[in-house]
Amino acid sequence: MTPTPTIGVFDSGFGGLTVLRALMERLPQAKFAFLGDTARLPYGSKSRRTIARYAAQGAQFLVREQGAEFLVIACNTASALALDAIKDAVKVPVLGVIEPGAAAARAGSQTGDVLVIATDATVQSHAYAAACRALGLRALEKACPLLVPLVEEGWTDHPVTAEVIRIYLDELTAEAAAQGMNPDALVLGCTHYPLLRPLIEREVPAGMKVIDSAEAAAEAAAREFGITAFTDASSKPESPECRCFATDSVEKFERLGSRFLGQPTGKVKLVDMSGWVDNVFFVTDIL
Amino acid sequence: MTPTPTIGVFDSGFGGLTVLRALMERLPQAKFAFLGDTARLPYGSKSRRTIARYAAQGAQFLVREQGAEFLVIACNTASALALDAIKDAVKVPVLGVIEPGAAAARAGSQTGDVLVIATDATVQSHAYAAACRALGLRALEKACPLLVPLVEEGWTDHPVTAEVIRIYLDELTAEAAAQGMNPDALVLGCTHYPLLRPLIEREVPAGMKVIDSAEAAAEAAAREFGITAFTDASSKPESPECRCFATDSVEKFERLGSRFLGQPTGKVKLVDMSGWVDNVFFVTDIL
Repeated sequence: MTPTPTIGVFDSGFGGLTVLRALMERLPQAKFAFLGDTARLPYGSKSRRTIARYAAQGAQFLVREQGAEFLVIACNTASALALDAIKDAVKVPVLGVIEPGAAAARAGSQTGDVLVIATDATVQSHAYAAACRALGLRALEKACPLLVPLVEEGWTDHPVTAEVIRIYLDELTAEAAAQGMNPDALVLGCTHYPLLRPLIEREVPAGMKVIDSAEAAAEAAAREFGITAFTDASSKPESPECRCFATDSVEKFERLGSRFLGQPTGKVKLVDMSGWVDNVFFVTDIL
Repeated sequence: MTPTPTIGVFDSGFGGLTVLRALMERLPQAKFAFLGDTARLPYGSKSRRTIARYAAQGAQFLVREQGAEFLVIACNTASALALDAIKDAVKVPVLGVIEPGAAAARAGSQTGDVLVIATDATVQSHAYAAACRALGLRALEKACPLLVPLVEEGWTDHPVTAEVIRIYLDELTAEAAAQGMNPDALVLGCTHYPLLRPLIEREVPAGMKVIDSAEAAAEAAAREFGITAFTDASSKPESPECRCFATDSVEKFERLGSRFLGQPTGKVKLVDMSGWVDNVFFVTDIL
């Protein structure tokens, strides 16, 4: 491992910047390279084979072109459907968001019953339910397809969004009760949802823990990648180095990305993945 | 023209089924073939060149494989960015949705000022503003990105949707007033929006006409394609023949499609457009 290892972070879009943000807070001595495959999103409607191919290409770009020594797959769909293909494609440690989210639910739940909210594609994969079951948890999943568009519209603190969250959570808790469950934890199974955390925490039943899979993945990365967190505050960098790449117009990425990252994304570089032939990428700095 | 000509209807998804519905009501003696390029949606985030290639492939499928003698491009993005490419690719009359929508606004407006609501991609293309300007109208466009997800969630008669429409229309009419406009017509510039027409009509200012570009396109098709409407009610078919095709999983298409079409879509056939080589399509009946 180099003294300041590069951690590659991959997403189909820019929601994964919430995972990058959590990683940067925990591992400020690392360098980061983020790739959003925005030209080919959404992954959710694509076949497993196509998702695996796209995600493996993205992982190879981060490792071969950007020198990543570790990879975090900050995309629920790719974590659910392509983690093995990515591990086959690169020779560095790879971590997804789903298993850390399930592990955090296991640590946070007393009753063993948990709720998961996510996109349609993630729910249809039942990846969270399987990861929870492997840890002895019962999980009930619900697709909340309006939440991503509400975040992208910027309505993260809006009465309409609060009402939509209330409706979804009422339906989910009623279904859990009908199944005889007694849930005490809610997993945010989508990288857009951390921006809604304050609203969601106001709407969950009293005593229910809200578990952010983005934070859980960052904590797992700090642990599993064996990167020592800084203890000497005087030498801690103010803000770690981070380079962002996207496969389509960087304008929307920069405009929305700063909301997810909690700071400006900096200059985003365009990567043409369609020109990916024999490991050659065409990287164009369009700014 | 054959006695019962086939009209091909193309969309990137299934929203264009609202245009098909309007066509079937006006031209029950025709046969219809609808293709939704669901594997490659959304078109809105793609480049003009890619959209033109995809839409031209779809048009060729409808003409060459399904025998369409007329084509309606029931997709605002493809109408805005690919109409010329489609006309170059096929030898049959082709009609988009944008010019008929603008023409209906011209016919419906007294003041010459009109409002247009549409998706982000359609607004960014400014295709409605240009088509309106060519007819001597002033148009103010607004992207309403939450309306498509609300329709797809099935919340077409829901208080949350009414509130979202109210917010968007308040912002739009305030902006129009700030620009010194006096609008008296609102164009629904997205094929999903006809499902929200009852809610939208409740929220528009008194005296403002709501103009549906799906209906306008169907009326223009009946006129421009020279197909005589049935006048002899006794010989009018109950429901015209219609075959639907999609390029990805037909399950969501059939489930959501019936809402847009106002009747069941029937058996939807899967078309593999990625296997489109030298004009050969692979059509698989998966039901």
